[in-house]
Amino acid sequence: MKRLLTVIILVSISFGLKAQEEKIDLEMVKKIRQEGLNNSKVMDIAFNITDVSGPRLQGSPGFMRAANYAKGKLTEWGAADARLEAWGEFGKGWELQKSYLAMKTPYYRPLIAYPKTWTAGTKGKLKEAEIFLIDETDTTALENYKGKLKDKIILLYKSDKITPSFKADATRYTDEELEKMANDAPTANRAQPDTAFRAMMQAMRRSTLLSTKTKEMAKKEGAIGLLSMSPRGKDGTLFVSGGGSYKASDPENLLDIMIAAEDYLSLCRLAKAGIQIKMEVDVKTKFFTQDLQGYNVLAEIKGTDPVLKDEVVMMGAHLDSWQSATGATDNAAGSAVMLEAMRILKALNVQPRRTIRIALWSAEEQGLHGSRNYVKNHLTDPATKKSNAEGDKIAAYFNIDNGTGKVRGIYLQGNEECRPIFTKWFEPFHDLGAKTVTIRNTGGTDHLAFVGVGIPGFQFIQDEIEYSTRTHHTNMDSYDHLQADDLKQISTIVASFVYNAAMRDQKLPRKK
Amino acid sequence: MKRLLTVIILVSISFGLKAQEEKIDLEMVKKIRQEGLNNSKVMDIAFNITDVSGPRLQGSPGFMRAANYAKGKLTEWGAADARLEAWGEFGKGWELQKSYLAMKTPYYRPLIAYPKTWTAGTKGKLKEAEIFLIDETDTTALENYKGKLKDKIILLYKSDKITPSFKADATRYTDEELEKMANDAPTANRAQPDTAFRAMMQAMRRSTLLSTKTKEMAKKEGAIGLLSMSPRGKDGTLFVSGGGSYKASDPENLLDIMIAAEDYLSLCRLAKAGIQIKMEVDVKTKFFTQDLQGYNVLAEIKGTDPVLKDEVVMMGAHLDSWQSATGATDNAAGSAVMLEAMRILKALNVQPRRTIRIALWSAEEQGLHGSRNYVKNHLTDPATKKSNAEGDKIAAYFNIDNGTGKVRGIYLQGNEECRPIFTKWFEPFHDLGAKTVTIRNTGGTDHLAFVGVGIPGFQFIQDEIEYSTRTHHTNMDSYDHLQADDLKQISTIVASFVYNAAMRDQKLPRKK
Repeated sequence: MKRLLTVIILVSISFGLKAQEEKIDLEMVKKIRQEGLNNSKVMDIAFNITDVSGPRLQGSPGFMRAANYAKGKLTEWGAADARLEAWGEFGKGWELQKSYLAMKTPYYRPLIAYPKTWTAGTKGKLKEAEIFLIDETDTTALENYKGKLKDKIILLYKSDKITPSFKADATRYTDEELEKMANDAPTANRAQPDTAFRAMMQAMRRSTLLSTKTKEMAKKEGAIGLLSMSPRGKDGTLFVSGGGSYKASDPENLLDIMIAAEDYLSLCRLAKAGIQIKMEVDVKTKFFTQDLQGYNVLAEIKGTDPVLKDEVVMMGAHLDSWQSATGATDNAAGSAVMLEAMRILKALNVQPRRTIRIALWSAEEQGLHGSRNYVKNHLTDPATKKSNAEGDKIAAYFNIDNGTGKVRGIYLQGNEECRPIFTKWFEPFHDLGAKTVTIRNTGGTDHLAFVGVGIPGFQFIQDEIEYSTRTHHTNMDSYDHLQADDLKQISTIVASFVYNAAMRDQKLPRKK
Repeated sequence: MKRLLTVIILVSISFGLKAQEEKIDLEMVKKIRQEGLNNSKVMDIAFNITDVSGPRLQGSPGFMRAANYAKGKLTEWGAADARLEAWGEFGKGWELQKSYLAMKTPYYRPLIAYPKTWTAGTKGKLKEAEIFLIDETDTTALENYKGKLKDKIILLYKSDKITPSFKADATRYTDEELEKMANDAPTANRAQPDTAFRAMMQAMRRSTLLSTKTKEMAKKEGAIGLLSMSPRGKDGTLFVSGGGSYKASDPENLLDIMIAAEDYLSLCRLAKAGIQIKMEVDVKTKFFTQDLQGYNVLAEIKGTDPVLKDEVVMMGAHLDSWQSATGATDNAAGSAVMLEAMRILKALNVQPRRTIRIALWSAEEQGLHGSRNYVKNHLTDPATKKSNAEGDKIAAYFNIDNGTGKVRGIYLQGNEECRPIFTKWFEPFHDLGAKTVTIRNTGGTDHLAFVGVGIPGFQFIQDEIEYSTRTHHTNMDSYDHLQADDLKQISTIVASFVYNAAMRDQKLPRKK
């Protein structure tokens, strides 16, 4: 019975689609390709967001530099109402102002080290801070160290093995992988894609849990700080992110410095062999408490159709990053692409039927706060938790946040009715490697804020390149790890998709 | 005619070999395998040479710590005459005692930085040192910058691209590659193996040439120092080595700091965009001028055969390293393996017919000085430049210096007559992946000192692992990049080869 019903629904959908054959303006696609592929400014935009602005941690001066740069550029290109919009209270800003850590005894050794965000500094330079090794797996054993941690730098013993990579750091999707994704059944509605991302998050959570108790005790006793090991990094690549809470009312977290795995394990071996280790350390961090608000950057190209102009096609990416690099692939890439897509559309002086709106989100890294609050403030009915009247006018939301790799297709997030539409929209881009439409969900980023209230929100399928191995949340996520040709391709396809969505007769179908 | 002659010679060699079928003591091989594979101390030895001793630059305290550790262990194991032997004047020692470099303006950014060896420090901490960009390709254009370099940190503009690795960092030889090496004809007598090494040396030379003129001018004018870019490194891996002369009479070289490619290129982009960059820098280096001698570590297991005991089988590796890491794969690996081979042989209380001598060389990185001077002082006839009477008593020299990868075979260095001997000696190790005997030469390390005066000197074929990509002369050449199982295998095979060479009736055949 249930099965029969499904068949009937599918047949009727299929008939419906046949009736309304998807049209695209190939002349405009050609112009967009010309502007996006041969006249691109995406790398210059990326340079300004990364090298020039610096790390863009939520609430940091670097974020504000990038946000104001984006607002300025959008205005310069002629976008309407370019603005920073507060979405509510986030908490404290934070910035690294000095970071120096080296081993002084038994011999001098500089370390690759990055204090985690929202942790306190040292009070000036400490010339002879002693390493204190805690070699326990059971937190109850911490009792044995009570009263011993004052003025020490805590090191939790680890004996991890670093293994050489017999697999390439960088990959692109193979045709087989893409075909498999395209052929996934609607029932295969799994949140598959970011296995690597989730594995990392899990490792980070484990590591955090292990050190939390130690940190509490260490802080109470007046320890200088704690060292952490990069969970997956090697060869000088460190995966570094947050080191504690940022709420306005929270006290400063204990200094927590992530160091290279090679350095960490070496210190562990020396300490375990009974060799006394002394460090020189000088870390200065600054907390910003005057303005606790979070801000998104928004701008528009106004719709021109008398009936449809109040409907909105949205495109977005998060602008914030972690702090140990300039967040190039996470997510200056997406932000630069979205700005470039706006630049392309303005350069072509498009007159879209619907309004096109760009959003550069903030505090994505702490839980999609910028996009979720935007959706909550503007698009959600508090009673139903589904989209309100304004939300119902959002025709679609397109997101980029999977690194620097070019677009190979799009995740339908279970919205089967969009398949023939996107399939058609990709037709002019088969030569650029983009055509796969998969029923799969993907998670971990801002389109979920829209999907959560029933608005069609999409993230593109992007080639992995070195995202999980070298750049995602690492000290190596800098400009030189961006792939220019990939970013040009993405900008071009995003501009085209947004334009198509702004021109078609109907909004994109809502998921049943 | 020539061809006929070759055939005749080959036939006669072949007959000669048939007559003296190579014998090996399989019972002893079994014991060596047992001790080397199941009772290994090689990783503990490596820990002491790397983590405990620190970087082992020629003439540095770190080198002396490791040398004295080796001497102590050799004595403890019962080797005879364990000693440090001076081989002549090398020049100044050098040690890094503080290294801090960060960008302060336009925003704070810690940099991954390693001062090159034998360069001067800053005079204390400089809080606001300005970057001075020189964007020229022609050294004659340097004239334009005259009088402008005082108190500046010089940055030579580069616009290199960092490309993601779609090939694995780590590799092992394939069966096909090994077979090809085995089948090389004697005429294919090319110095093939270390292509990557030579490419790097070439790149380094180019880079050095480019900056030499600038450095001269910068030093004359009182610049603070110069930044260099890691020639091939990325992702936090830096290839760092020497920054100038170390002769006793030479003045200190200008401070030259190698920084991560990602950092370097970012500074170049910012400076070229006209953004003023200020750095905080504090580098302290120490030159050692009291003892300018170089020292090798030597020890022996005395021969027991009345006739053959004055003949010597030698095994060696260089103990010195560069300074940005603890030189694990270059060449704590080789040193630990040679020490472990001695330990194995002493643990088995072997009574070799010939004397077995271990040598841990110094100043290999500056031109094989330790081994060349040993050969010159002991084994060379000044008149003929060939081996003297003592040199004629050296039955063979075996070397390890190609990283952490296990032995897959041996380079004959054109000495075809050794092929059947080594082929036989590898027979008990086929199960460990070692059997290939190639006529090829390999270069770049200490066996050349012996080969150069006509003594049979050999370097084993070793799996590459991450040698060229991540460890060789890098800041990542540390203990965790050693492969324990590989080092156990190498120690076992080296001990066996050395024992075989000490027991056979004849010395190894000299190259015709």
